[in-house]
Amino acid sequence: VKVGGKRYKTVWARGGRGVFMINQNLLPFEFEIKKCGNHSQTVAAIKDMSVRGAGAIGAAAGFALAQAFLEAPQKSGKAFWEYASRAKREIEASRPTAQNLFYATRRVYAAAKKAKTVVEAKKTAVREAQAVADEDAATSRAIGVHGEPLIKNKRSKRGVTRVGTHCNAGWLAFVDWGTALAPVYAARRKGKRVFVFVDETGPRGQGARLTAWELRNERVPHVIIPDAAGAFFTSKGEIDLMMVGADRIAANGDAANKIGTLQRAIACAAYGVPFYVAAPTATFDLRCPNGERIPVEERSEDEVLFRSGPDEKGVMRRVLVANPGSKARNPSFDVTPAKLIAGIITEHGVIKRPNAAKIKAFFAKHCPERLR
Amino acid sequence: VKVGGKRYKTVWARGGRGVFMINQNLLPFEFEIKKCGNHSQTVAAIKDMSVRGAGAIGAAAGFALAQAFLEAPQKSGKAFWEYASRAKREIEASRPTAQNLFYATRRVYAAAKKAKTVVEAKKTAVREAQAVADEDAATSRAIGVHGEPLIKNKRSKRGVTRVGTHCNAGWLAFVDWGTALAPVYAARRKGKRVFVFVDETGPRGQGARLTAWELRNERVPHVIIPDAAGAFFTSKGEIDLMMVGADRIAANGDAANKIGTLQRAIACAAYGVPFYVAAPTATFDLRCPNGERIPVEERSEDEVLFRSGPDEKGVMRRVLVANPGSKARNPSFDVTPAKLIAGIITEHGVIKRPNAAKIKAFFAKHCPERLR
Repeated sequence: VKVGGKRYKTVWARGGRGVFMINQNLLPFEFEIKKCGNHSQTVAAIKDMSVRGAGAIGAAAGFALAQAFLEAPQKSGKAFWEYASRAKREIEASRPTAQNLFYATRRVYAAAKKAKTVVEAKKTAVREAQAVADEDAATSRAIGVHGEPLIKNKRSKRGVTRVGTHCNAGWLAFVDWGTALAPVYAARRKGKRVFVFVDETGPRGQGARLTAWELRNERVPHVIIPDAAGAFFTSKGEIDLMMVGADRIAANGDAANKIGTLQRAIACAAYGVPFYVAAPTATFDLRCPNGERIPVEERSEDEVLFRSGPDEKGVMRRVLVANPGSKARNPSFDVTPAKLIAGIITEHGVIKRPNAAKIKAFFAKHCPERLR
Repeated sequence: VKVGGKRYKTVWARGGRGVFMINQNLLPFEFEIKKCGNHSQTVAAIKDMSVRGAGAIGAAAGFALAQAFLEAPQKSGKAFWEYASRAKREIEASRPTAQNLFYATRRVYAAAKKAKTVVEAKKTAVREAQAVADEDAATSRAIGVHGEPLIKNKRSKRGVTRVGTHCNAGWLAFVDWGTALAPVYAARRKGKRVFVFVDETGPRGQGARLTAWELRNERVPHVIIPDAAGAFFTSKGEIDLMMVGADRIAANGDAANKIGTLQRAIACAAYGVPFYVAAPTATFDLRCPNGERIPVEERSEDEVLFRSGPDEKGVMRRVLVANPGSKARNPSFDVTPAKLIAGIITEHGVIKRPNAAKIKAFFAKHCPERLR
């Protein structure tokens, strides 16, 4: 992300012990780099959503486990591995719906496990965590390349393709570049005209805050719409295609993503608008047969009952937006069934009209190690 | 509505000149009776949504026109009728999607027009406006009676029927009692167990603020859900049926209601959950053949970009909840096609699986004067 002329990654490590991230809880009103000095601080940042989005969580989780390896006591192998595996469980419990999180911790842990000495395990963990983050950036770039041809389709009006998106699956959701927005950015760089309808994405407003912030920085024309208005604009033919990210994709193509994605997909199906999911292959959980097996977190009701933002003087305030004393429910994710998905855009290409057989064949071709 | 042991109507007139209303812009945080001393003040209250909801707008519009008749200069018949008809147009322009508004102004105007003298016209206008308001209250009560048997259906879990609703079509939306919530209140009074899922209904939050406020006053168990979560709860089988209101219903049954209604109806259809519209026959615009002809207002983008409410000290604040500099769109309504509606609950009974022929037959039987 370019901020004030300087280019930033969403999350990065320096020397293993220090993990740095753009504090997404303060965006778009304040730009702050948060430093996490140990793995517990990084876990806390994942939990409180200072870092959020599939790839960024994955990278942060890998870095957190590397931090834990560096912190682990060296007095005995047993104590060392106990510390590391407890940290791994702790990290994995921080956002249980995030597939990339498990992907990162497993990779870092398995790599370290192969080391012959404790000292070597530490070095390996740091190196592997960095590799996870670097691959995430490269993967996003490739998703942009594969998704870009989908922008500009038959429906486009006066040469402008109108893309709908939900939540934030852009730069800020990954180490760099993004997924659902990567094709948009790639199309822009090719000179294509794109307009983005950004779902507000309540209750936390990741669309209105983060996606709109990104798009404005990239000078992509866009407009924020209330979550309630998605079907309306779809029914009016104002949206040519939808592109969203995913937090976890089951072996049959069912995709978990931010709450609200499902009803956008249902509305797209009702009006014949193609609905795409953009996600790296790391987001697939091939051991999960279908969406019904994906656990859905419920977050604090306070996110629904209150809203935060700066008042007219720029002072951050939290205001009550619901009837005092009424309760709320706040599921974090929903699952869009594969049958509603026109294609899953990955770093290796697009899986059109996904189902279990096509996904298996795709992995057999591009990442056979994942099927073992 | 019972507030502090005292029973209030949503909007009422005293002596013709004074129109009083519960100021819904301050609810649920403050309870205030707003007085409008002339027709312009009443129009302003309709525009700024101090009074909102189909029936309450209709009653307020009728009262406003009666005010205008009382204000009109008596020096000549020409000046008198010019004043009255200008006021009528002004009132009708205040919320152009609200069918009840036109119904009320036309009725009051036509009644006054029949009077032989200007003085008599004034009296007639006041009387007719009061009749519109009284009929609205009686109508809501009848909708409750006809809708009540729908509560408690095969899906109900452990005897509790879980009703979803969008926006506010309760007491506050009408002079008294409500439409979409009238069957819920009627069921409660019969001792049935009901639980209500209240859509937050962004950007203004009429569900989270007004419907939740009403339900809590009536001690009906309920929970507020984000607009993005509707399809999720529907897909999980947690909602047995939906009941919503309408602002205008076309001759074929297409129903305009608060933005977000359409996607709830689409999700209900996808999961086989019955979707009901509750509205008085006054809400039907039989000259409007279908939903495509219903104009949709777009309101100020500020409603999307900002949220208001009390901070922790109870001071009302307006906070920015979107990226500074990004624009928003804010359509007020959407239109749910008749084919997605299980039934329209009116004061004369339920029109099941509505279409143009059934609606025409229904009006021929119950209100033949509307077909002339």
